Amino acid sequence: MMSLSTYESNQYRGRYSMPVPTSNLLIIENDFPEFQPFEEEATPRGYAPGVASLSVQNIDMCLQINKSKHYTTAYDTQNLVVRRGQEFVIQVTFSRQPTPADNFQLEFLIGSDPSPSKGSLVAVTFGSRNGGQWSGKILETRGNTLMLGIKPNATAIVGKYRTYVAIMADGGVQRTKRDANTDMYLLFNAWCPDDAVFLSDEAQRREYVLNDTGVIYQNSASQRSWMYGQFERGILDACIYILDASQMPIYNRGNVINLVRIGSAMINTQDDNGVLVGNWSDDYSLGTAPTAWTGSAKILLQYANSGVSVCFAQCWVYAGVFNTFLRCLGIPARVITNINSAHDNTGNLKTDLIFLTDGTPDRRNTRDSIWNFHCWNEVYIARADLPPGLGGWQVVDSTPQETSDGYYRCGPASVAAIKEGLLCHPFDSGFVFAEVNSDVVFHKRDQYGTLTPYKVDKTLVGQAIYTKAVGSTSAVDITHTYKYPEGSAEDNRTMTRAEEYGCERDHSELPDVQLSVVITAEPVQLGQDVNLAVDFQNHGEFPKTVEAHLSGSVIFYTGVTASDFKALDFTVTVPANQTERVMLKITAEEYLPNLGSQLSLNFVVTGQADDQSVTAIKVIDLQAPVLTMTVSGQPQVQQEMFVTVSFTNPFNFPLEKVNLAMEGAGLMTHRTRYYSVINPQASISWKESFVPRLDGPRRLLAVMDCSNLQQVWGSVDIDIAA
Amino acid sequence: MMSLSTYESNQYRGRYSMPVPTSNLLIIENDFPEFQPFEEEATPRGYAPGVASLSVQNIDMCLQINKSKHYTTAYDTQNLVVRRGQEFVIQVTFSRQPTPADNFQLEFLIGSDPSPSKGSLVAVTFGSRNGGQWSGKILETRGNTLMLGIKPNATAIVGKYRTYVAIMADGGVQRTKRDANTDMYLLFNAWCPDDAVFLSDEAQRREYVLNDTGVIYQNSASQRSWMYGQFERGILDACIYILDASQMPIYNRGNVINLVRIGSAMINTQDDNGVLVGNWSDDYSLGTAPTAWTGSAKILLQYANSGVSVCFAQCWVYAGVFNTFLRCLGIPARVITNINSAHDNTGNLKTDLIFLTDGTPDRRNTRDSIWNFHCWNEVYIARADLPPGLGGWQVVDSTPQETSDGYYRCGPASVAAIKEGLLCHPFDSGFVFAEVNSDVVFHKRDQYGTLTPYKVDKTLVGQAIYTKAVGSTSAVDITHTYKYPEGSAEDNRTMTRAEEYGCERDHSELPDVQLSVVITAEPVQLGQDVNLAVDFQNHGEFPKTVEAHLSGSVIFYTGVTASDFKALDFTVTVPANQTERVMLKITAEEYLPNLGSQLSLNFVVTGQADDQSVTAIKVIDLQAPVLTMTVSGQPQVQQEMFVTVSFTNPFNFPLEKVNLAMEGAGLMTHRTRYYSVINPQASISWKESFVPRLDGPRRLLAVMDCSNLQQVWGSVDIDIAA
Repeated sequence: MMSLSTYESNQYRGRYSMPVPTSNLLIIENDFPEFQPFEEEATPRGYAPGVASLSVQNIDMCLQINKSKHYTTAYDTQNLVVRRGQEFVIQVTFSRQPTPADNFQLEFLIGSDPSPSKGSLVAVTFGSRNGGQWSGKILETRGNTLMLGIKPNATAIVGKYRTYVAIMADGGVQRTKRDANTDMYLLFNAWCPDDAVFLSDEAQRREYVLNDTGVIYQNSASQRSWMYGQFERGILDACIYILDASQMPIYNRGNVINLVRIGSAMINTQDDNGVLVGNWSDDYSLGTAPTAWTGSAKILLQYANSGVSVCFAQCWVYAGVFNTFLRCLGIPARVITNINSAHDNTGNLKTDLIFLTDGTPDRRNTRDSIWNFHCWNEVYIARADLPPGLGGWQVVDSTPQETSDGYYRCGPASVAAIKEGLLCHPFDSGFVFAEVNSDVVFHKRDQYGTLTPYKVDKTLVGQAIYTKAVGSTSAVDITHTYKYPEGSAEDNRTMTRAEEYGCERDHSELPDVQLSVVITAEPVQLGQDVNLAVDFQNHGEFPKTVEAHLSGSVIFYTGVTASDFKALDFTVTVPANQTERVMLKITAEEYLPNLGSQLSLNFVVTGQADDQSVTAIKVIDLQAPVLTMTVSGQPQVQQEMFVTVSFTNPFNFPLEKVNLAMEGAGLMTHRTRYYSVINPQASISWKESFVPRLDGPRRLLAVMDCSNLQQVWGSVDIDIAA
Repeated sequence: MMSLSTYESNQYRGRYSMPVPTSNLLIIENDFPEFQPFEEEATPRGYAPGVASLSVQNIDMCLQINKSKHYTTAYDTQNLVVRRGQEFVIQVTFSRQPTPADNFQLEFLIGSDPSPSKGSLVAVTFGSRNGGQWSGKILETRGNTLMLGIKPNATAIVGKYRTYVAIMADGGVQRTKRDANTDMYLLFNAWCPDDAVFLSDEAQRREYVLNDTGVIYQNSASQRSWMYGQFERGILDACIYILDASQMPIYNRGNVINLVRIGSAMINTQDDNGVLVGNWSDDYSLGTAPTAWTGSAKILLQYANSGVSVCFAQCWVYAGVFNTFLRCLGIPARVITNINSAHDNTGNLKTDLIFLTDGTPDRRNTRDSIWNFHCWNEVYIARADLPPGLGGWQVVDSTPQETSDGYYRCGPASVAAIKEGLLCHPFDSGFVFAEVNSDVVFHKRDQYGTLTPYKVDKTLVGQAIYTKAVGSTSAVDITHTYKYPEGSAEDNRTMTRAEEYGCERDHSELPDVQLSVVITAEPVQLGQDVNLAVDFQNHGEFPKTVEAHLSGSVIFYTGVTASDFKALDFTVTVPANQTERVMLKITAEEYLPNLGSQLSLNFVVTGQADDQSVTAIKVIDLQAPVLTMTVSGQPQVQQEMFVTVSFTNPFNFPLEKVNLAMEGAGLMTHRTRYYSVINPQASISWKESFVPRLDGPRRLLAVMDCSNLQQVWGSVDIDIAA
């Protein structure tokens, strides 16, 4: 990204007529002299000689009226927060009652060196004289006090404005003094039909803009709560700080497409000094484990206060924090989970898994991986830059990925375009298309190094795509918004179109399937044994003797192997046209010492019969124990309440260096508790008091994190009365 | 960009199954053990027991045959250079005559950890056994020697490959030793119909791929030669070094769209440690002035040898160096000059120029600028990623610009899409569209700070777009490839479509034109007086008295003011329906002391009559003197010749700290000469000998640079016999 020093340097003196402003939060105290003489000597129009000169005695930003009408009451700030494209009111008290001959205007300024031609200096007039792009009208006159209505245009720059009242006086302009109390935040407006983020459904607006608590799905069996906390104290400034740190020109901050794209780059540290440092290892000793966060607020505040990237994140942390950034600025947003997400860095539609001639995985030569799940975000925006029909939900992804063009950002990519295979539009739709549509190609690598494909799985990748339902905590399967049913005519059309746009698919001729294998298993609690049912099916007319091999490993959620713990050879004879089931038990003692901080087990069964190879893969996500949470006290705003977090160690080993964290958006800021050890069967109980700030259905979330057990969560819901 | 340390770090251990290779030039000596046992015990097929084992005695890369057929003879390297999608030959001599039972293959490897599934390890087989994606056949057997034909696929990775011969022996694979002499460069192939860079016309291929000398236009009156020098020693490695420095994964280097996009980012230093540092000032004391370069070779070699960005560049230097990079890798490319290029950082179609009420330019509030000229590149590539009809020439621009998405790179943007206003396709077509189509809106800023547009000029921006003609040094106007004639039905359709895709235009209601003003001037030699003819035209029915003002300034080619040297008020009375001409003379003494290193003068005439304002702008590019160059000797390859550069100081002031530089692609590498002073009317003469390396029509170019005079060039053409 552009460095400030580049602009400051003399090297660019002949390049820019003025430095391009890229900071919104920079404190500017001297926009104007209080009295600014006219550039010409002529008496200005509108000045009424002979009348006592007009001056301003008070500016009231009318927080209560405005915040309620603009759905911004929840923001924990003393300043006005309003949404663009919608009128707000300001009450100005003058030294005397203004007459029609008096000439004054309101001025809203953002960033340094604000400019009327760039929308960063907006004059609002209240008579026949033309002003800037925001309209103004006098709503009411009560003696010396005017109630003024101001409507920012629906494409206005989003951020923090400075407010002035300017009165045209004898020979010049008399302005109010700089007053930080009249600073005003202007946000995107999902309630305004002219705004690119307009969303017509009120329930959806309340969920996707106003809900500060969410649920993130991690696999088909597991979900976790996440505190977005976009209304908590300091978060709005932190989000503007992110834009400042990105050096995004102030002028472009009204364009939601540019803004979300830069946001997706800034949430990760790659390319720039972004918010979160990624860490996909088992060592998080230099920061907070990705599994140990309760929400976004602590991360954003730490980043904005220190200017230093926060350690550590994996995909759901990136998605959770990005969601806060988006909702905080008024952009409808949600977190999406793609189950079995393809991760391929050549941008084709093939995920190549390579096996040795004996059927074991060839890890040295396998470059692609399938993530058990991957989280990204969707934003709801019109896409005036694209043909009709491609607006609405758009994928943005802030987890650092190798998108084809080399930078660490992704989207906005139209979900509708992905569904139709219309990969010819910006941004990065081909990349997302591959994440949900890749074919998994199983190759055998022979002794000469040559690869021969022997199986293609078209259904594994993008098996399901989830998001939280509007107004409830249940999961909604939105796979159908990304793709047509596998094998349907529409699916074929989409795939053909994607290939026309250069997305290479596999068209290998595969051997006839004479034998197949499938693994099934019941959900498993952490600490329980695993029972695998391995079904070999013989489709041929002769019995087959299968030399089979089971390998078991602990994997990261990215599909990468953390450690191997099981290797077993076995033989099974399958009669012609029949299925033979082999039950395999893996005891807890076999996998427990190898888990590290992971909870995913990967089992691969390969079989050889005559010249045929078969392979089946099964990922098992172990279910962690949960924290119990109970609350007491009167559930009402500003009334003290209590919460208790309880946990009993169900294992026969001690849990060590145990960190507990808890928060609840609108209820309680982030708190922590430390236990050096929790012995086998021992219980802990942690009680905290809190005073709810916001009403409505709310949630408290606690997370436990220790060196030998992670991903232990609990939550409790409370409906707070106003 | 991704740092190597990110990958090396343990933090990504659970993220990637293998590190993603991003270096091609890294020396790798141990791809394989010389003998690699089979992973199974079984005797491999193809091994013929009882016959003396086969071994390799010699590998001949057949440079002469291959380079001629692949149009790569000019590359000054000892290694083979071939183009993909086209057969080349390798002659392998074995220890005995191979029999059909012998089993061997050629192996081509690129980057570290090469992988058959990613195309970075390619096995080429010569019998019925399947190999990788490149085809092989035995062309001829002469005793122990086989002439082998190898045809890389037309999407193969481009770069430097290592070559091995592998023989399947008893129980394993026996390979030749690593030998840097058999390393081979594989390039894009404009002669291959299956390659995305295919260009059907041979004259165009010779110009856009093989011509190593070019011409860059700087304004309608001025052009300069540029030595691309893509075949000079070390340049091909330097271009691969740029890709390595970009951390572009090896796997993606077969995709020309990705490659040119990353190239456009890497030629400038912004975002990454790229090739050239920009400097738009008059102070180049810490490096070489942008005007003082003769060509790309010195820049690329200095960058590749030091790893440090080279100082300094302006747009034509970026475009010249990028052109070398593109042609060197085999991509058809040319340098484009856009006369009056709009430079606006809000991505709309308006260039806003603001004037005070008295008609003088309001520099404080004017943010946009019109560059006198701007250079970019075009590449000729198929766009499989776009709908049909949008392939062919594509804009790529490596001058650091604020494209809307915040990074310093631009393109590939389809020229056909720009012409049609189809701004809904990647990459950055809206940005280029604005550069050639912006309306210039003249605003008056009143005493309240309010802007009122009073004039819109729809023809100034993108006035002409030039490139060098195929096979000659004349300029071709290719404006019609970017846009339809102003005001035509097609132009209206294009503009309407661009607006539909969100490109905001000006639709202000303008006052009736009662008065207009135009400035005309003859071309002016540096040191001569300037004569401006200012025509005021009164379109009204009454005579008008115009209070007029002339301001004169020296500007950078970016339109930014370097210094003001003239301000003159005058009055003119214009009869009804008539034109009144005022002649204004500006003497050389007025502008000379203010020039610095610039040669552009900007004159603004403003006039006020009644309530009406008029403004005219005229940029005058002063013509610098030229260097005289003469050659002697026999113009033949490997024969010594001589060149003399002569110059007489035509000014009445001394030229100080004079640096002369000279080079000629295929004739002479970069040489310099220094004169501490050249007194008024004094002459210098610099003679150098050189030995032509390449035949054909060639050019020597010399450039003079001193603290008080720049942009002095000369060239001489020579036809070198083979």
